[in-house]
Amino acid sequence: MSIGVGIIGTGIMGADHARIFAGQIAGAHLVAISDADEARAGAVARETGAARATSDALAVINDPAVDAVLIASPDATHADFAIACIKAGKPVLCEKPLAPTAAEGLRVIEAEVAAGRRLVQLGYMRRFDPGYVEMKGLLDSGRYGEALAFHCVHRNASAPAHFDSAAAIVSSCGHEVDVSRFVLSAELASVQVLKAKRSRHATFDDPMLVVFETDKGQLVDVELFINAQYGYDVKGELVCETGTISFGPTLNTDIRANGVHATSLAPDWRPRFAAAYRIQNQAWIRSIASGVPVGSSAWDGYVATTVTDAGVKSLKTGETVAIGYEKRPGLYS
Amino acid sequence: MSIGVGIIGTGIMGADHARIFAGQIAGAHLVAISDADEARAGAVARETGAARATSDALAVINDPAVDAVLIASPDATHADFAIACIKAGKPVLCEKPLAPTAAEGLRVIEAEVAAGRRLVQLGYMRRFDPGYVEMKGLLDSGRYGEALAFHCVHRNASAPAHFDSAAAIVSSCGHEVDVSRFVLSAELASVQVLKAKRSRHATFDDPMLVVFETDKGQLVDVELFINAQYGYDVKGELVCETGTISFGPTLNTDIRANGVHATSLAPDWRPRFAAAYRIQNQAWIRSIASGVPVGSSAWDGYVATTVTDAGVKSLKTGETVAIGYEKRPGLYS
Amino acid sequence: MSIGVGIIGTGIMGADHARIFAGQIAGAHLVAISDADEARAGAVARETGAARATSDALAVINDPAVDAVLIASPDATHADFAIACIKAGKPVLCEKPLAPTAAEGLRVIEAEVAAGRRLVQLGYMRRFDPGYVEMKGLLDSGRYGEALAFHCVHRNASAPAHFDSAAAIVSSCGHEVDVSRFVLSAELASVQVLKAKRSRHATFDDPMLVVFETDKGQLVDVELFINAQYGYDVKGELVCETGTISFGPTLNTDIRANGVHATSLAPDWRPRFAAAYRIQNQAWIRSIASGVPVGSSAWDGYVATTVTDAGVKSLKTGETVAIGYEKRPGLYS
Amino acid sequence: MSIGVGIIGTGIMGADHARIFAGQIAGAHLVAISDADEARAGAVARETGAARATSDALAVINDPAVDAVLIASPDATHADFAIACIKAGKPVLCEKPLAPTAAEGLRVIEAEVAAGRRLVQLGYMRRFDPGYVEMKGLLDSGRYGEALAFHCVHRNASAPAHFDSAAAIVSSCGHEVDVSRFVLSAELASVQVLKAKRSRHATFDDPMLVVFETDKGQLVDVELFINAQYGYDVKGELVCETGTISFGPTLNTDIRANGVHATSLAPDWRPRFAAAYRIQNQAWIRSIASGVPVGSSAWDGYVATTVTDAGVKSLKTGETVAIGYEKRPGLYS
Repeated sequence: MSIGVGIIGTGIMGADHARIFAGQIAGAHLVAISDADEARAGAVARETGAARATSDALAVINDPAVDAVLIASPDATHADFAIACIKAGKPVLCEKPLAPTAAEGLRVIEAEVAAGRRLVQLGYMRRFDPGYVEMKGLLDSGRYGEALAFHCVHRNASAPAHFDSAAAIVSSCGHEVDVSRFVLSAELASVQVLKAKRSRHATFDDPMLVVFETDKGQLVDVELFINAQYGYDVKGELVCETGTISFGPTLNTDIRANGVHATSLAPDWRPRFAAAYRIQNQAWIRSIASGVPVGSSAWDGYVATTVTDAGVKSLKTGETVAIGYEKRPGLYS
Repeated sequence: MSIGVGIIGTGIMGADHARIFAGQIAGAHLVAISDADEARAGAVARETGAARATSDALAVINDPAVDAVLIASPDATHADFAIACIKAGKPVLCEKPLAPTAAEGLRVIEAEVAAGRRLVQLGYMRRFDPGYVEMKGLLDSGRYGEALAFHCVHRNASAPAHFDSAAAIVSSCGHEVDVSRFVLSAELASVQVLKAKRSRHATFDDPMLVVFETDKGQLVDVELFINAQYGYDVKGELVCETGTISFGPTLNTDIRANGVHATSLAPDWRPRFAAAYRIQNQAWIRSIASGVPVGSSAWDGYVATTVTDAGVKSLKTGETVAIGYEKRPGLYS
Repeated sequence: MSIGVGIIGTGIMGADHARIFAGQIAGAHLVAISDADEARAGAVARETGAARATSDALAVINDPAVDAVLIASPDATHADFAIACIKAGKPVLCEKPLAPTAAEGLRVIEAEVAAGRRLVQLGYMRRFDPGYVEMKGLLDSGRYGEALAFHCVHRNASAPAHFDSAAAIVSSCGHEVDVSRFVLSAELASVQVLKAKRSRHATFDDPMLVVFETDKGQLVDVELFINAQYGYDVKGELVCETGTISFGPTLNTDIRANGVHATSLAPDWRPRFAAAYRIQNQAWIRSIASGVPVGSSAWDGYVATTVTDAGVKSLKTGETVAIGYEKRPGLYS
Repeated sequence: MSIGVGIIGTGIMGADHARIFAGQIAGAHLVAISDADEARAGAVARETGAARATSDALAVINDPAVDAVLIASPDATHADFAIACIKAGKPVLCEKPLAPTAAEGLRVIEAEVAAGRRLVQLGYMRRFDPGYVEMKGLLDSGRYGEALAFHCVHRNASAPAHFDSAAAIVSSCGHEVDVSRFVLSAELASVQVLKAKRSRHATFDDPMLVVFETDKGQLVDVELFINAQYGYDVKGELVCETGTISFGPTLNTDIRANGVHATSLAPDWRPRFAAAYRIQNQAWIRSIASGVPVGSSAWDGYVATTVTDAGVKSLKTGETVAIGYEKRPGLYS
């Protein structure tokens, strides 16, 4: 009763996913791996014990031994591959974003609605991070009253070469969009992007402060700082009526040396969210066996893209932009 | 060589100041204390060893044994008493605000400019808080590059009876206005007030997010939450080009009990800023002896009032309000 | 290439191990489960998808579909079952202790030496805890010089019904014995047990301070407090020549409420060491595939028992007891 | 009503005390300062505004304008100067230790008993440190039950040139002796000194673990590490029946930079205990005005010396040494 997994794309994320499945996940085994660079796919397959490597993503999707597919290929290909999986009737865990724009993402929604069942899970792994899960649980317990505001910080050590302000909003802030909706059980109604003084280490507007208002009137403010130099750092403080909930430090040791008392910060997102990825992938495998979907749906992927589209619009004007959504199909209610 | 101090007003703040001078400050002694309620003034004088109590503030100002005056009477009286001190040629430490409006505050500026020397120090005690002082010192060291954004949190357990949204901006946010200018060595150019979901424990817009832009392009965002229930909490994180600087916990013990590891938070501002008040008052006494002014000037008091006037305007419209200032007299350069 | 696992014993630990294998471990599947209480074994088998349940531990060991065995039955049975596994040529992960006394433990050593290869891993899971692993890595990096002393704290909320002072040393302190040797790469040469004032919540000497000296002259002091009431808490500070290394907080959220800033502590060892158990069991499965043993060996199990035997002796006299070991067979060098 | 203060000794401690009185203490003024090096006394007098400087300590004690004396001269002179103050009927704040040996300290006790009133306060400033005061207050509240053990850590960056193992026990551990008695309201009944592996940065036994048993059966263990290199660090964890009480971090800012989240540690004891010294000196001045003694008495000074004498004895033998005290005179009950 082991699920055969296929992986499309073996860049940093895809190779990491292959290692996670090979080394940390119960009830699954790797079958086939593809990458436009077939040699790279082959190397990952050898390392992780996958049976087959190819440059043909569709061959993975249609491989009879592949029960479920993980998509980690370039963003522009996500929607087409997800639709192919839906057509093949195979569960898919698709790295975020669902698509570069909301309009393209809607095509996946349509395909899934046509199929009549949920097959797509979006890789917004923070929904499985123990910190966010505990935060949401504490909020939902009612112990601290209702949530009123949510302060978020998203810092990377340095931006990838191709990044610009819009990419920061779409790619980095997309995580905060999805996880805010998850924690608050609310929809984002408007967005305003404010530019801070630009760091001399940045080639675009960095840092920025992105402020959302939810349909419950809550404020969500996100500091996006992609060239923070000092490390990768994700923080959150949920402000409730009688208390606030934050994340504690996440790494393991505390050092007293050289005149300071210090804890290490992660250099990038992978150690920070290692547990989230592992738990997400395990939950996905379990959900395939049980038939009960978990995590972010294709609809959540569409919503995230719609919000970040509006953020990019606000980036240009500085004005508050109201966010409009398509009608949510019953499949996602 | 001990400075004779007179105190006007013996509410919570004035009585605390009297105790600080009597019990913690070198080089000063209390001479005279006034309050509209003469009995209250008398009780504080007896407790603190001041020679005289009266209901007449001007008698304190003009008392020949009074070398310097602390004003802690109701806000509406600050400007007149400060002007009387200037006319008497006596140094004055005036509790904030300088005046309820910027226009009234300007009268103090004019009187001091006419006197030709600085006699007024405003009681923005955070400029003497070891945390803010250390933060500013670290920024000015250049070790972390320039400041880009400043995240501030100002929470009280509950609002005084008379409070409303405007009072939160004028009274509570005034501290953040002054200390942000101090830390950043920058002026605030615009302000926007955003309302979060209102707490069921509040009778006005609470919490709010107040966002300033400085003349250097930095963002300063302030969460104002006057009915936070759980305690008094002031936080700050200064985001610089290569690192961030925050305040550590300020109280003394760490408890492990009942399933949690906890540190106490202050119930109100007095334990949180006890060191700041003591150091401020000592620095004022020293500055009288040395003739070199320290702390916030009357001009800083005028600026704070001008900024919070603009904040109240934004509160009504939700729009970003540009802040205009009078020309700064040479006395304050 | 999936390893078939059999489990002996389905008390708290055995049932937890079954769940870990069923839900979190790659490359393994549960085959057979035994317990003296066959119904309990059956329930766990149903929950975790194991094929067979029985009351006969030897049937598990000799089941041809069982490639490897986990022993979590009562302490007194560990040695016999481990020897049976060795005779069957099957790798075994044996919960600690190896045996109730050092003398019994030696029988396992003899059987393994006779078999000529290492098949036994002891379940001292702290060697896989990310905190201890990071601590050891930092020590071994040489960055902080050599280790001079190690302060350890082991607190439980309350003692099991049958506990006494000797059990605290054997059962609770056994973990510190094994992990100190692991972190310090040193052997324990002597032990002294000191009794603190007895808590009114304890029926035996509790807390105690157990002080070891290593063969390198380092001191290891362990506070054992089995009725600490407030929660489960394991702390460690490794004192090195130029710095110290401690464990940070391990749980996820930070709450500000009711006048305190608090983080939760685990109620018992399972949430505190959940990662350690998962990583240990995964490493064991991997080591079976690779043929390279990991973790604590049978020899380490014998050593731990020898040390705690000496601790019990010191408990009675209050004197420092020198610890003598058998000659270490070449198999374990 | 200002107390005239004389200071004997202007080494690091004496000069610091002169600055504290000149700049931070209400109700006192500096009158006369002496040092064997008269030029040094003169420089401190000029800096702090004291009227007179001399090389003659007795001239300070007998100066009619001197109401009270602070002794900060070399340890061997403490007892004689304290006795001279007693004979002059003047209150004295004497830096610790009371005398190099318990026998010499008894001479001060006899002089004070003969005088029939308490004039001597020992400079164990930790009794005024807000952390220890809060710890004691929490213990005395009964909220966490009784104290069972107390873990203390005393680390210096590096040892003074003349230090040896005995000096570490007498000088450094003396503080822990006094403050443990204060926090626990208990007497120390025995002491055992254990040597850890010696740091390559040390020329004597360093670190050591000093273990006391109180007359209530509590254990107090003190890590003494005088060459810890990384900074000055004093920690304490009081283990009670239902919870533990520790000190939080004491400095002001929290830095995130260079991959770590860090708080600064003090380089030496002065910033760490700046508040303790200020509060101690202010309390001493207040106690002179009120006639009610505060802080450690001469008897406490004798006790500390008796305990550290026993510690030095245990250092030589490694054995537990029972500690015997003279009968406590009624003056100190």
